[in-house]
Amino acid sequence: MITVVKIGGEVVDNPEVLPLFIEKFAAIEGPKLLVHGGGKEATRLSARMEIPTVMIEGRRVTSRETLDVVTMVYAGLVNKRIVSMLQATGCNALGMCGADGDVLRATRRPAEPVDYGFVGDVSVGGVNAALLSSLTAQGIVPVLCAITHDGHGTLLNTNADSVASIVARGMAQTGPTRLVYCFEQPGVMADIADPLSLIRTVSRSDFDSLKEQGIVSKGMIPKLKNAFDALAGGVEQVEIKHALNLDNTTGTAITL
Amino acid sequence: MITVVKIGGEVVDNPEVLPLFIEKFAAIEGPKLLVHGGGKEATRLSARMEIPTVMIEGRRVTSRETLDVVTMVYAGLVNKRIVSMLQATGCNALGMCGADGDVLRATRRPAEPVDYGFVGDVSVGGVNAALLSSLTAQGIVPVLCAITHDGHGTLLNTNADSVASIVARGMAQTGPTRLVYCFEQPGVMADIADPLSLIRTVSRSDFDSLKEQGIVSKGMIPKLKNAFDALAGGVEQVEIKHALNLDNTTGTAITL
Repeated sequence: MITVVKIGGEVVDNPEVLPLFIEKFAAIEGPKLLVHGGGKEATRLSARMEIPTVMIEGRRVTSRETLDVVTMVYAGLVNKRIVSMLQATGCNALGMCGADGDVLRATRRPAEPVDYGFVGDVSVGGVNAALLSSLTAQGIVPVLCAITHDGHGTLLNTNADSVASIVARGMAQTGPTRLVYCFEQPGVMADIADPLSLIRTVSRSDFDSLKEQGIVSKGMIPKLKNAFDALAGGVEQVEIKHALNLDNTTGTAITL
Repeated sequence: MITVVKIGGEVVDNPEVLPLFIEKFAAIEGPKLLVHGGGKEATRLSARMEIPTVMIEGRRVTSRETLDVVTMVYAGLVNKRIVSMLQATGCNALGMCGADGDVLRATRRPAEPVDYGFVGDVSVGGVNAALLSSLTAQGIVPVLCAITHDGHGTLLNTNADSVASIVARGMAQTGPTRLVYCFEQPGVMADIADPLSLIRTVSRSDFDSLKEQGIVSKGMIPKLKNAFDALAGGVEQVEIKHALNLDNTTGTAITL
């Protein structure tokens, strides 16, 4: 089983949680890949450089200057911090953005209806699963940030949840694959204020009713869409859970 | 023949020269690696973030904050810009810092006699030539920045000329290797103000007399030392030349 794990910016940013997560990730047996976000550091650096941060519906509008900032933070600072921490545990991590080895080739998003700037989307055909498999077969653990490229020399900012989903779909073509979204909650919650309200399983029909009731909203909706896309694309198991529950069964299993 | 090419910050920074260099580098036949610097961008970002830049004898003192800056600029911005440009020419580049795949393991420089902060040096044993060879055998072109790691979770800033020399020495253990230092001059010059004063060959005894006469000084002295170290370490050919002469014979050949 190939395991694809995604961690968000809130895990990356937390100096107590990150080292514990790293240990748990390093302990996963078999071939594995890590996909990471890193949003808050990019916002902080933008502020320090006096570059305005523009978000539309929770997504960062990526000007040329912002593209430089996210490339520095995601592909540089955050990626190499994670890789060096994994190396210290004996896990042979290799950090990559999508341009490295042509591993994630994206299509720039059209400027209509919303112009997000240098933002791209990756389809299954854009995932270089052959290279990722060859690396994992050598005992290497690819650590992917969500900077992709168009193949014509332009880097593009991509949503990290979407990257994790599409990478898992690409890997599923090479063998049984499991996708785990790790974040700061125990999973999908019936009541965000009640840590005991974890929903253990969410099917597609559950999702529709949870949306209707307003129980899932905001960032959880695209995350769940990515989770269902992964299942529909041949990924065997998809889970959403707290980063520190990576090594146990607490979390939400997503089912078709 | 394996070719290791090094470009400095003055090439990386020059928007006219860089794309022409990239084309010439991509056209080199056989296995190859690129090592790059990127000093001026780091200085600019430090200034914009109001982090003081401290240089001692031309070398950057690397505080924790400066380490973050150079990691962002070298491993992020500059590395991924070069990789995406190479990918656009069809050259299957893969950007790495020393932590990636444990490719360059360094020893932190002692704080005596001068405390350079988070600065490290790599010996031949710290070069993961097996991984680099395996990548080049797969048609991949490693693009290395000069950020290394200590294997215990700490990234270290390393001199890019030294990285190029030690990588070439590491690769020389796997097969015949050539090292090319590319910069903004035609090579070692008898008179820096006279572009026709190129010295075609510099031997170790030439180097001693050029130093005595004050003809080579400053940055050229460590570059030549790195060149001689490479030859002494089994690298077959070492050249110092202009980045745009990568595809012709104009330049300085270094000989023992």
